[in-house]
Amino acid sequence: MSSSFGRIFRISTFGESHCPAVGVVVDGVPPRMSLTEADIQLQLDRRRPGGNKLGTERDEADQVKILSGVENGLTLGTPIGMMVNNKDQRPGDYGSMSQIPRPSHADYTYQMKYGIHASSGGGRSSARETIGRVAAGAIAEKYLLQEYGIEIVAWVSSVGDHDSTAVDMETITRAQVDANEIRCPDPQAAAKMVAEITASREAKDSVGGVVSCVCRNLPAGLGEPVFDRLEAKLAHAMLSLPATKGFEIGSGFAGARMHGSAHNDPFVKKGDRLGTTTNYSGGVQGGISNGESVYFRIAFKPPATIGQAQQTVDYAGTETTLEAKGRHDPCVVPRAVPIVETMTALVLADLVMLQKIRG
Amino acid sequence: MSSSFGRIFRISTFGESHCPAVGVVVDGVPPRMSLTEADIQLQLDRRRPGGNKLGTERDEADQVKILSGVENGLTLGTPIGMMVNNKDQRPGDYGSMSQIPRPSHADYTYQMKYGIHASSGGGRSSARETIGRVAAGAIAEKYLLQEYGIEIVAWVSSVGDHDSTAVDMETITRAQVDANEIRCPDPQAAAKMVAEITASREAKDSVGGVVSCVCRNLPAGLGEPVFDRLEAKLAHAMLSLPATKGFEIGSGFAGARMHGSAHNDPFVKKGDRLGTTTNYSGGVQGGISNGESVYFRIAFKPPATIGQAQQTVDYAGTETTLEAKGRHDPCVVPRAVPIVETMTALVLADLVMLQKIRG
Amino acid sequence: MSSSFGRIFRISTFGESHCPAVGVVVDGVPPRMSLTEADIQLQLDRRRPGGNKLGTERDEADQVKILSGVENGLTLGTPIGMMVNNKDQRPGDYGSMSQIPRPSHADYTYQMKYGIHASSGGGRSSARETIGRVAAGAIAEKYLLQEYGIEIVAWVSSVGDHDSTAVDMETITRAQVDANEIRCPDPQAAAKMVAEITASREAKDSVGGVVSCVCRNLPAGLGEPVFDRLEAKLAHAMLSLPATKGFEIGSGFAGARMHGSAHNDPFVKKGDRLGTTTNYSGGVQGGISNGESVYFRIAFKPPATIGQAQQTVDYAGTETTLEAKGRHDPCVVPRAVPIVETMTALVLADLVMLQKIRG
Amino acid sequence: MSSSFGRIFRISTFGESHCPAVGVVVDGVPPRMSLTEADIQLQLDRRRPGGNKLGTERDEADQVKILSGVENGLTLGTPIGMMVNNKDQRPGDYGSMSQIPRPSHADYTYQMKYGIHASSGGGRSSARETIGRVAAGAIAEKYLLQEYGIEIVAWVSSVGDHDSTAVDMETITRAQVDANEIRCPDPQAAAKMVAEITASREAKDSVGGVVSCVCRNLPAGLGEPVFDRLEAKLAHAMLSLPATKGFEIGSGFAGARMHGSAHNDPFVKKGDRLGTTTNYSGGVQGGISNGESVYFRIAFKPPATIGQAQQTVDYAGTETTLEAKGRHDPCVVPRAVPIVETMTALVLADLVMLQKIRG
Repeated sequence: MSSSFGRIFRISTFGESHCPAVGVVVDGVPPRMSLTEADIQLQLDRRRPGGNKLGTERDEADQVKILSGVENGLTLGTPIGMMVNNKDQRPGDYGSMSQIPRPSHADYTYQMKYGIHASSGGGRSSARETIGRVAAGAIAEKYLLQEYGIEIVAWVSSVGDHDSTAVDMETITRAQVDANEIRCPDPQAAAKMVAEITASREAKDSVGGVVSCVCRNLPAGLGEPVFDRLEAKLAHAMLSLPATKGFEIGSGFAGARMHGSAHNDPFVKKGDRLGTTTNYSGGVQGGISNGESVYFRIAFKPPATIGQAQQTVDYAGTETTLEAKGRHDPCVVPRAVPIVETMTALVLADLVMLQKIRG
Repeated sequence: MSSSFGRIFRISTFGESHCPAVGVVVDGVPPRMSLTEADIQLQLDRRRPGGNKLGTERDEADQVKILSGVENGLTLGTPIGMMVNNKDQRPGDYGSMSQIPRPSHADYTYQMKYGIHASSGGGRSSARETIGRVAAGAIAEKYLLQEYGIEIVAWVSSVGDHDSTAVDMETITRAQVDANEIRCPDPQAAAKMVAEITASREAKDSVGGVVSCVCRNLPAGLGEPVFDRLEAKLAHAMLSLPATKGFEIGSGFAGARMHGSAHNDPFVKKGDRLGTTTNYSGGVQGGISNGESVYFRIAFKPPATIGQAQQTVDYAGTETTLEAKGRHDPCVVPRAVPIVETMTALVLADLVMLQKIRG
Repeated sequence: MSSSFGRIFRISTFGESHCPAVGVVVDGVPPRMSLTEADIQLQLDRRRPGGNKLGTERDEADQVKILSGVENGLTLGTPIGMMVNNKDQRPGDYGSMSQIPRPSHADYTYQMKYGIHASSGGGRSSARETIGRVAAGAIAEKYLLQEYGIEIVAWVSSVGDHDSTAVDMETITRAQVDANEIRCPDPQAAAKMVAEITASREAKDSVGGVVSCVCRNLPAGLGEPVFDRLEAKLAHAMLSLPATKGFEIGSGFAGARMHGSAHNDPFVKKGDRLGTTTNYSGGVQGGISNGESVYFRIAFKPPATIGQAQQTVDYAGTETTLEAKGRHDPCVVPRAVPIVETMTALVLADLVMLQKIRG
Repeated sequence: MSSSFGRIFRISTFGESHCPAVGVVVDGVPPRMSLTEADIQLQLDRRRPGGNKLGTERDEADQVKILSGVENGLTLGTPIGMMVNNKDQRPGDYGSMSQIPRPSHADYTYQMKYGIHASSGGGRSSARETIGRVAAGAIAEKYLLQEYGIEIVAWVSSVGDHDSTAVDMETITRAQVDANEIRCPDPQAAAKMVAEITASREAKDSVGGVVSCVCRNLPAGLGEPVFDRLEAKLAHAMLSLPATKGFEIGSGFAGARMHGSAHNDPFVKKGDRLGTTTNYSGGVQGGISNGESVYFRIAFKPPATIGQAQQTVDYAGTETTLEAKGRHDPCVVPRAVPIVETMTALVLADLVMLQKIRG
């Protein structure tokens, strides 16, 4: 009973893998914004499996339909309902697995929570749930860019043990990120990541990775002390995504090994504002943006569904072997890139609007 | 405008460093629980500076007073107001710093957000704000232990580059954690951590660290898909604490380097429930507890206030040097231990109550 | 930005008169409830114009489609998305009125609030917005009846100056209410009401009325002190409906003229519980249900859209005359009956679930 | 578990009749407002029993103490904690009634809800709970007056069967209201009301009444469609007050008897805005303020606690007679006047801030 996110720019998503449709209601969209389905479709296409050779083969066109809140290409300030039809509503592929909870998947926990689970297993833990988020995030992004020039760019910074070299966070663009299928702007690392994923698929295995994200041109003052600090909302948003295991902002866990004399970001004058010479803080101090770029990283575990035979038990506790059928995505991070951008945009749109109250 | 946390077990905190009092209103406490100020005081004493030789010298007795919601030692089910007086209400020590925003502190961002800041600087970013949380958390902990046998234990797992060896998460107790002043249950690592903090203080510097936490005896089924997944709420809670830079659950960032075949936790029968043979998931799958222990780690940066001279600028942008006066805590992690337990208890109490609706 | 209602059983509606669809996302529906579109359609048909000879002629089939949250006829505990297509998406009929805000309608205030308004005028103030509510309310009603035997029945108790005689609130049924088109269970009053509405239509005028509602078999203990008292939530719910001007519970405004010695409801033993001999309280004391029937009344103003010529001004302030074209509903109360039941069910489902936390 | 009210300007109250203190935490107060305890005390004094000859004799100084959020007479934008000590913490007067639930009081329902009740009976249903609200409302009022010139004035418009003649809502002031102890600006009606209350007291009885309220200088555009329409929030706020049985805005229940041709408020040009020639709407259309004065009325039942002997039963169901001891307020409406103003201010402050987001 927590399918809503945000206080002012507030979304409510619905839909499982095999029901008629997935979608979202977005409340709090500013009136008089130009908005069309094409604005939404862009990020939906980036998250789509098959928009990426490395993902699953299952083709889902995922065409969004705007149901309300827009007239003559302008938002009315009223809720925007959006939906995407599910093409394959037959949960057939999953039938054989219905008596065996997949290890590290959500089948078992959904059953324990609800006393029932969707035939496809983990119900709302399906990646298709994120379609509603991405549709809503596209509106948030457009608003942030248009009103504040805020830019959000995410990329793959590691797959398995293969790390990209540092990127220039002040200049990296989505075009650069999308230049290869793995969405890693370091071509040499990208090649190794692709090889790693290919090998994992061939081994009927999966592999984890890390997505990094930067937000530029944020005004100082965003973040609501004390419980809705900017980093707290970002952490909440990111850990609400399937398969996430960690979040760090600025110096992150490496910062916990540093001394204050090295970690502190000295102030300097930057034009008509104060800025900092370093940015270990990740653009946030005391939970409030300071005008520097905000950057953070999210750890994604290897997908739980693998083709290899796994020793486990069924719901009754009887030992058995499970081999997932069909094609499954061996690594989620390339597709996670637009979803991370989405959740970032949703957090920022909400905080920008809350700060307007003090304007 | 976000000083409340929780949906059902809901707290609202108030207070800065130098106002008359800090405190909290706790709504949603179950009726007919036995509760006295002594129940609250225990964790308040653990978080108190001076309850720990390594912390600041400033002595604050921090005696809690229950203002409402309890009669004859029993909760009424109505809001429990609690307060702790601030002893030193004169913001004198901070006067010299009022024109210079301290690097990596919240002075500047509070000024940018509110157009005003408390004389002590970052207002609500003060560690004293956590008193209200800890008072509320003590009630949550008592409820969880009493009703479900849920145990929450946090400890210091690193200071600077000094890591503790792995602890046995299934057995570690608070008594073991409190056996030394650094709250690290590995005595050899603890000695190095103490030396590190002492050296940092002598160098007028500070140092970061990591706090680990385990929750035992959680029933399966806690966590509200999709936005209030258990790990999302924990991440939100932890990153709402001052000085935090990262959160990871289960395998965390290390898990992002693994393959699914190694990372998946196979199911086995454990008594009358299913359990797992490994626990890379950290006790949570699809955002819902699975009945195994939940464990996670939080990165704390080195405190921003240091005695060393720092090159920086004042609010007007003029270059200057800043040396913090007085005594300041060179490392927050020992005191953070009960605060991490507090935020964990607040998250769990809320999720336990939400799940009761489905009972 | 307030298109959601409820804390646990929580709905989010979307849609205007002339967009592609109206609908709702319902979060917090209990899992394992049997649910089909037929369960929903029943109340949608009762609210439909044309399901009632006295209403507008505009025929809208209003067939609901369940998009998510239900599989094999059982709820999954996940959000239930529902939609109803708008047949006529051309806002043609309203074109002539676009420069003139209709008196006592929402055209002007929507324009002032949002700086834009839907071509049909008051956007979300349209009666079609209530479709999403009614669809959600049908689920709430089913849950309340099934789990607690709670019955909710509303009826028309006045139209213009024509009042029904008192009905027996302990026995009245929906079948009795629906026995005539005006939904007034007093046949003689009903005849006068029909005549009044017919006369109003012929005079190109409209007329107001009152809807009464009773809830039976409520357990004692519902209502959340202090801000979500049962009557406060009901008042909120009812005044959120278009065209409402007042709410009273139990003795209501007449009770303000009474003395305590007459108004107090003495307790008596009723089986294994305490009950009261009178019920001026309307089943609620201190904001909490006491086990007696809850009853209340809602005042609806005459619809603002009338065919008569009205002297008014356009948006520029120039004097003009307005005559609404097309057919408009001269009285909303017959159609309001299922909508009042809906809002009641939404309030009660939420409060029942909140009280389960204390169970 | 609903002791909070408001989305942005959000209050959380605490306290029963006989606990150490009552109070409130106010989140969302704008920064840099001048604020002292004297600003708060004004309305607290107006609500105080004994500030009014007709009320109870029990003297409670009710001096407010600001605990946080204000420094050097200016708000910091952080939560403002406030408390008022309860003088008499001994629940002695109520001991004799502890086995008998008072008819039409909250003793029984609190017991049924929580399985426990405060020794004074209805716990949070006590009038003392409103102290926290009034303290918070004083801040809201100051903000609304200062920033928008918004004026809120309430008065007693009936006691028992004695109605005041219509007052001029565009000019009435609090000074005029406070000119007599009954707070009715019609002196002749006031005299009859005083006589009615005196007679009720002498008869050990109580009597109900109605409070009216007007808000002037509201900008157009306040109110959040569809669930937080202005009138819905006002109704919620007013029915959350103890002893309320009804709410009506503008034409109210009388409007339900009218035709649209008479009820519609024609637009005219008023300076640089549109206004209306009549105001049956009560300043609100489609749930949004239209720039005209908003006015409404609240019905209060006669207080349940009376000195007369009442036939009733005890908790065990045994017949008994109850005579309330001590002095009790025979009519709440004079004291309700500042409380109604308070709740109005809380609603408006929140809606004003929400509308700033669209500014």
